[in-house]
Amino acid sequence: MNPRHVAIVGATGAVGQELLDVLARRAFPVASLRLLASPRSAGKRLRFAGEEISVEPLGADSFRGMDLAIFSAGGGTAKEWAPRAVADGAVVVDNSSAFRLEPGVPLVIPEINAAAAKDHQGILANPNCTTAVALMALAPLHRAFGLKRVFASSYQAVSGTGAKAIEELRRQVSDLAAGRPATAEVYPHQIAFNVLPHVDVFGENGYTREEMKFLHEGRKILGHPGLRASMTCVRVPVFRAHAVALSAEFEREPDLAEARDVLAKFPGLRINDDPARNAYPMPLRCAGQDDCEVGRLRRDLALENGLALWVCGDQLLKGAALNAVQIAELL
Amino acid sequence: MNPRHVAIVGATGAVGQELLDVLARRAFPVASLRLLASPRSAGKRLRFAGEEISVEPLGADSFRGMDLAIFSAGGGTAKEWAPRAVADGAVVVDNSSAFRLEPGVPLVIPEINAAAAKDHQGILANPNCTTAVALMALAPLHRAFGLKRVFASSYQAVSGTGAKAIEELRRQVSDLAAGRPATAEVYPHQIAFNVLPHVDVFGENGYTREEMKFLHEGRKILGHPGLRASMTCVRVPVFRAHAVALSAEFEREPDLAEARDVLAKFPGLRINDDPARNAYPMPLRCAGQDDCEVGRLRRDLALENGLALWVCGDQLLKGAALNAVQIAELL
Repeated sequence: MNPRHVAIVGATGAVGQELLDVLARRAFPVASLRLLASPRSAGKRLRFAGEEISVEPLGADSFRGMDLAIFSAGGGTAKEWAPRAVADGAVVVDNSSAFRLEPGVPLVIPEINAAAAKDHQGILANPNCTTAVALMALAPLHRAFGLKRVFASSYQAVSGTGAKAIEELRRQVSDLAAGRPATAEVYPHQIAFNVLPHVDVFGENGYTREEMKFLHEGRKILGHPGLRASMTCVRVPVFRAHAVALSAEFEREPDLAEARDVLAKFPGLRINDDPARNAYPMPLRCAGQDDCEVGRLRRDLALENGLALWVCGDQLLKGAALNAVQIAELL
Repeated sequence: MNPRHVAIVGATGAVGQELLDVLARRAFPVASLRLLASPRSAGKRLRFAGEEISVEPLGADSFRGMDLAIFSAGGGTAKEWAPRAVADGAVVVDNSSAFRLEPGVPLVIPEINAAAAKDHQGILANPNCTTAVALMALAPLHRAFGLKRVFASSYQAVSGTGAKAIEELRRQVSDLAAGRPATAEVYPHQIAFNVLPHVDVFGENGYTREEMKFLHEGRKILGHPGLRASMTCVRVPVFRAHAVALSAEFEREPDLAEARDVLAKFPGLRINDDPARNAYPMPLRCAGQDDCEVGRLRRDLALENGLALWVCGDQLLKGAALNAVQIAELL
């Protein structure tokens, strides 16, 4: 790959920092790197490959001369600035949900649907973090047995909300330890020693956006418009890495040994499934790790052709920064 | 009810302490109270209704003259001593899993199957805590619409494991805050800022005993041998109260308004379901509360006649001490 002129929008956020790390770690061929953020964060200096780079405010000239722009800002920023980046000749990989379901915008997990990336019109979308982690195990099973429907419950880390949520969990824990009340600012309720069945905003049908993303993005990424899915997304007092409990029904009877085999062969996924030795995926172990892990694989007792399983992955890596860089590598 | 001579086996444990509190709070007619425990705990003094009572070692004469013995010790203790208590004329309410599935032993949640208590032969069993919490919402829906199958994922507090697990979570959090490594003794892995898809021991089919209890006890309590259920039980870093995410399929199409109505009328259950105001059940709110709570009620998107819901309850109360005393009140 020829070295690219790369811009990162939202460089100072939790995912932005991971992006710098992933680009360096994977030796992505960077000809030049431009770090962009809101005026509030401009002037900060971030390290990349041994160099300090000043963060610039996002503006009209930001994308001139750039080949690639990785957006890791909100949907509003993406909607406003991604088309401008494309107009200036850059290809955009966007982490927000702004373009994910738009026709003509490939929504890509390279291990699953790399071919879709070819058809881009300037913008490619990175999937929702929980969706990405769950699909890393569901996709190979879908190929082997034909996925019909999924029942999912998530256990999502606070870093999925951002740096302020990490700080809030830390502060609440230390306030409680000191006998002080734990105040909540980022979440509507205390997250320390609690769980909240509430990730993203609620819709009319009683599901949150996060829960619906799994259904809609899952259909697009798997190229399976008939997929059915019901999900409950829950925030848990974990710093990093999401976990998902899944019951999945298939067209064909999934042989357990064959299921294990297709999971073992899938790139980016590791089987960690030896309950007798207390071995199963856990957020603490998956944090900071590129590979997602799957375990607790067993026949589902309430489905005819079903499997129950437990998947875990670092949502800042496979769920965000790593996947975004992997998409860029496809281009 | 005539005052009863009451013995509590396992009085010094987490549930034992709750039992004393529940008996006093509900003004259970206690003629005399005998607190029993292992020789290790004998001699400790516990308060009940303003009096201090010495804990006695469990022994041959422990149940002489007792009308009621509430066991809150392990299955081994129950198996050895419950029949002796019955032989001495006491009725036993046992919190362990030792007798739950035995024919002739009623397994009772008074709001659901109080009538079953009549047929006891000296021993009545108190259900598994997670099962009890989940069934408090599933039972009224079953009556109204006919439950076919359930997909469940739990979020279980450390107090379900006992006092040592509470201490372990507290210690790990403070060790980590001080920059010390968090060692695990009660659980096989760190529970602070982590989740473990592992509650109770694993069986041959890949499910844990806790996960199978939900199926087998659910069938018995609902009087529904054809019920199907698939569960994943997960320990979370919460001190008290269990939560369960459920997808439930019914024989008849469940009308949402009707479902809400039967849930609202069910004793011991409270609807807490106003997502627009961030109102939903949470462990932190349910801890120390007799009533279980249900919320996040919505049509299940992956089932024909299905509902998705989220239930939460204090597993030391409805899941143990409260339910045991309620069973005793039926006698």
